[in-house]
Amino acid sequence: MLRTTPEDFMRQALIEAEKAYDKDEVPIGAVVVHNNRIIARAHNLTERLNDTTAHAEMQVITATSNLIGGKYLKNCTIYVTLEPCVMCAGGLAWAQLEQLVFGAYDNVRGYSNYSPPLLHKRTKVTGGILEDECSLLIREFFKKKR
Amino acid sequence: MLRTTPEDFMRQALIEAEKAYDKDEVPIGAVVVHNNRIIARAHNLTERLNDTTAHAEMQVITATSNLIGGKYLKNCTIYVTLEPCVMCAGGLAWAQLEQLVFGAYDNVRGYSNYSPPLLHKRTKVTGGILEDECSLLIREFFKKKR
Repeated sequence: MLRTTPEDFMRQALIEAEKAYDKDEVPIGAVVVHNNRIIARAHNLTERLNDTTAHAEMQVITATSNLIGGKYLKNCTIYVTLEPCVMCAGGLAWAQLEQLVFGAYDNVRGYSNYSPPLLHKRTKVTGGILEDECSLLIREFFKKKR
Repeated sequence: MLRTTPEDFMRQALIEAEKAYDKDEVPIGAVVVHNNRIIARAHNLTERLNDTTAHAEMQVITATSNLIGGKYLKNCTIYVTLEPCVMCAGGLAWAQLEQLVFGAYDNVRGYSNYSPPLLHKRTKVTGGILEDECSLLIREFFKKKR
């Protein structure tokens, strides 16, 4: 079996983001990986659900907790197409996420613009995986909206 | 009719917090007020729901959006017994909450320990309403737990 790379998982998060795009939602997607397998996936649904808290990350936190029957995501990696916002970073901190991998950086609303650090101190972070594809999809969405 | 005071609404948030206490949840409660009426109420359910995102504030954001059929809480005041955390402050920011009133200050995990400011710039904030009652309930909970 070929080794699954971070890019492979981010491509799956991008597929989720494209589902959001097709529903006229800001195109952000996320998957949760445990033991090299995707166990949860979601995309932004703030318009459809009429709920500002329905970000992809918040939905996968809840879905994963339901699935594993525990509220901590200690052995999980979340792949998300955009750097999480303050709300999502706070949620990931409470969940004690093991690893966060994101695509595009968000220099305005991204959690890393705040201090002290918002994530749990043990959460490992990698940014910029498939950055161009992830940010292009978001730029295209907002271009279409103007 | 007698004028309803912030203390009256905070007392209702405290009643929610007591419901959490009785379920062995960290005792935090919240109510949403619109036109001087309570339109949503919730208490922390992170244990019962096995979900770190099930804070009182997150639940009342979702409940209020469902009720008013819109995702912005522009004409609403949230009364919550403890200063919101980063996650909840981020959620309240996206919801463009008009006014936040909280009871006890949280010098460790409270949103106001972070910068730049986490809330929406137009959200008015008052802290310390029924502070003693709100913090006593939380202290009693953790004393019982030790």
